[in-house]
Amino acid sequence: MTQVTAITTTWVRELQDALGPDSVLTDPDVTAAYARDQAMLVEAGLPAAVALPRSTEEVSAVLRLASRHGVPVVPRGAGSGLVGAANAVDGGITLVLTRMDAVLEVSAADRLAVVQPGVVNKTLRDAARGHGLFYPPDPASYDWCTLGGNLAMNSGGLCCVKYGVTADYVLGLEVVLADGRVLRTGRRTVKGVAGYDLTRLFVGSEGTLGVITEATLALRPAPQPPVTLVASFGTSAQTGQVVEQVVTSGLVPSMLEVMDRTCIRAVDDLMKADLDRDAAALLLAQSDSGGAVAAAEIAALTQLCEAAGADFVHSTDDPAEGDLLMTARRMALPALERLGSSLLLDDVAVPRSQVATFIDGCEGIAATAGLVIGVVGHAGDGNMHPTVVFDGGDPDQTTWAYAAFDAILELGLSLGGTITGEHGVGALKADWLEREIGPVSLSVHRAVKHALDPAGILNPGKVFRPVPGAGVAG
Amino acid sequence: MTQVTAITTTWVRELQDALGPDSVLTDPDVTAAYARDQAMLVEAGLPAAVALPRSTEEVSAVLRLASRHGVPVVPRGAGSGLVGAANAVDGGITLVLTRMDAVLEVSAADRLAVVQPGVVNKTLRDAARGHGLFYPPDPASYDWCTLGGNLAMNSGGLCCVKYGVTADYVLGLEVVLADGRVLRTGRRTVKGVAGYDLTRLFVGSEGTLGVITEATLALRPAPQPPVTLVASFGTSAQTGQVVEQVVTSGLVPSMLEVMDRTCIRAVDDLMKADLDRDAAALLLAQSDSGGAVAAAEIAALTQLCEAAGADFVHSTDDPAEGDLLMTARRMALPALERLGSSLLLDDVAVPRSQVATFIDGCEGIAATAGLVIGVVGHAGDGNMHPTVVFDGGDPDQTTWAYAAFDAILELGLSLGGTITGEHGVGALKADWLEREIGPVSLSVHRAVKHALDPAGILNPGKVFRPVPGAGVAG
Repeated sequence: MTQVTAITTTWVRELQDALGPDSVLTDPDVTAAYARDQAMLVEAGLPAAVALPRSTEEVSAVLRLASRHGVPVVPRGAGSGLVGAANAVDGGITLVLTRMDAVLEVSAADRLAVVQPGVVNKTLRDAARGHGLFYPPDPASYDWCTLGGNLAMNSGGLCCVKYGVTADYVLGLEVVLADGRVLRTGRRTVKGVAGYDLTRLFVGSEGTLGVITEATLALRPAPQPPVTLVASFGTSAQTGQVVEQVVTSGLVPSMLEVMDRTCIRAVDDLMKADLDRDAAALLLAQSDSGGAVAAAEIAALTQLCEAAGADFVHSTDDPAEGDLLMTARRMALPALERLGSSLLLDDVAVPRSQVATFIDGCEGIAATAGLVIGVVGHAGDGNMHPTVVFDGGDPDQTTWAYAAFDAILELGLSLGGTITGEHGVGALKADWLEREIGPVSLSVHRAVKHALDPAGILNPGKVFRPVPGAGVAG
Repeated sequence: MTQVTAITTTWVRELQDALGPDSVLTDPDVTAAYARDQAMLVEAGLPAAVALPRSTEEVSAVLRLASRHGVPVVPRGAGSGLVGAANAVDGGITLVLTRMDAVLEVSAADRLAVVQPGVVNKTLRDAARGHGLFYPPDPASYDWCTLGGNLAMNSGGLCCVKYGVTADYVLGLEVVLADGRVLRTGRRTVKGVAGYDLTRLFVGSEGTLGVITEATLALRPAPQPPVTLVASFGTSAQTGQVVEQVVTSGLVPSMLEVMDRTCIRAVDDLMKADLDRDAAALLLAQSDSGGAVAAAEIAALTQLCEAAGADFVHSTDDPAEGDLLMTARRMALPALERLGSSLLLDDVAVPRSQVATFIDGCEGIAATAGLVIGVVGHAGDGNMHPTVVFDGGDPDQTTWAYAAFDAILELGLSLGGTITGEHGVGALKADWLEREIGPVSLSVHRAVKHALDPAGILNPGKVFRPVPGAGVAG
């Protein structure tokens, strides 16, 4: 114990020398604030030091030092993650990128931006808007999450049905490798096939392969103000029919969200919004195509909803009224939070043809567990967020809640889906990863990890478990 | 020599046992037909055996056997490639995937297709069209190239300005690894972030990391018949201005192609098409948005061309007339071919703001080399194809031609571009790769390659040179 402390003292002093004392935090009362993300039920360690570098060179210095001393490093941004991917490792370094927060360039002529990882998603959105451009990825935490975190997790959001996910906007990266070397991937051009797609390898790798210190991101033309549609249905099968018809008819709304009965009632209880409490599901859709095209898209959606037997369909091109309609969707999680002391927020993506089957399956799981499970989801891309509500102080309810959480993942896989559509694996689902990808893929993951981080110092234990005995986390 | 032959005889016999004698070709007169792709000036070896497997299991058997005997394996499809990526290795196995040519599924409800690698691009396009759907990637060889080759090379085409490249359509893969194990990557869902993006790692890896035996590909709603615009300009700067204005104004045409004066005149000589021989550049654009939207897009493009000082602008919504206008673009390479016995077709992508500078630079390089260099290109995404025309029988011209080819790559890099926008690296540009990506990235490429193919049997010498002494190709 004394020896460990002595070793720690040595590298912490080196860290302070490298970054300056105001960039290294060691007081446990202070470092505790950096110990975990928003996955409150996932275990987290306590970092021996929190490093707040201001430059790529400082990140490189931290990783050289960590490599030399075999200290685990957990990179993180604002900590808005939902799977514990940024949770600290006991005695390790938590590397906080929030001070590297410059938008280095916005180029209208090449329709791209160059950013540091600590830039808040909304800051880039605003900077792009200033040039008549648009950065689509919009995780729910867009006004406080950082782009570095978005990149590490390959974040999605409401925009994905039309605009895809974070990875679809990454042209190139600067990455500091485990040994401190600085790698540049990708390019500034739209197209390019020179070498392996290392950019995509790092995006979504949850900080286990390198630390992203700069990103070149593609931007899009600014969309038009949205036209919004809301429709309610007596059965979830009817909403499933609409989703399937949207896909087969080739409609591409800019948003297509679903809420189940549990969420509708929870929101209505909270907001007194006069929602249809008997509805089985509510669909919310938007078109941002503008003018006649948006009108035609919303008309086509209205027709699909009516043909599926909607009890109620309403649309508006008034952005303020549209925003008000969207409030019901935005308040779904806060409304569920009021129903129990704890939430387990799941994140399963299923093929779009399976959305209704999945919602019905969650209702069955809720009945079996004797718990409330509310389902909201990005119906347009099949990414569903069933949320298990329970009393975390009740051991029996807690056991049932975790069983329900697992049953939801099992259901998703059985429908040809994935255990995570956009939140990531982190620590929360590391044991589930192999269930989805199988032993061959797991061994390839480990081989790639070992090629880039042979000592296993980068975010150990996240995404998948290390092989026992391999690297610092073994 | 005798010993090598004896060893070869052994594994060839094993190969014949595994696949059946009609699936293994060894007659040098026959195997020569499989020795190279369309990069006629790139060296190629002669395979000891050509294997034509009919199933994933047979591919797996070939790779297990090749691993055991340390025999290099070059996977290939139809051989339409332009960089020698499919060129044979002396004494190795050339693995031809064309017999695995089934479209296994087209799902309108999930808007995807599942295909084997030997399916011809056009076959999938036709199958998708039968469901009112669209598979966008359209390399020039779409009517004979295979999807396996498209995936291995991450092929582009004319569609990219609006629809992206092959990689943008790949949801998941089945890949046989160097040791014969079968890996599945990705998923059937639109979104998914479970684990590393191995799908993208294999796409564009040019057969150096594994052999793709199945792919799940996203499809899109079918586009509308195109409206076509043609415009001619007195200076390439004017076309550059149009491209930049298209980007900044947020217009997204479904095609935006450019031809320089050399190509205009060559095509006019060949076709007697009454083209404007004094024009410095011709722009060809299409909108496939249909109806009023297409009309508005083409009107906006017309306005941009006129504002840039076009000598001539014409548009048509008659698909037959549009197709006729497109003939000029399609005939550019055949027309250049008539001007010399040999062509060096380059493939540089530059940031879209640099298109005009690049075209002017190529004119300068042509003047220096004393050779004809014609430039056609996908102006909308900055991917340019300067083509050096020369007499391959003249050693002096050949030296100048290669010098010009290199100068074009150098120019592309100096403008922030890449040495290959869509054709790939192959054998042709393997020595150029490090110039673009640098030593850190090259070492990461080698580490990833070593992790997946430790003996270096998969397509050795392509993309980058093996480390001397490492693997079979050392």
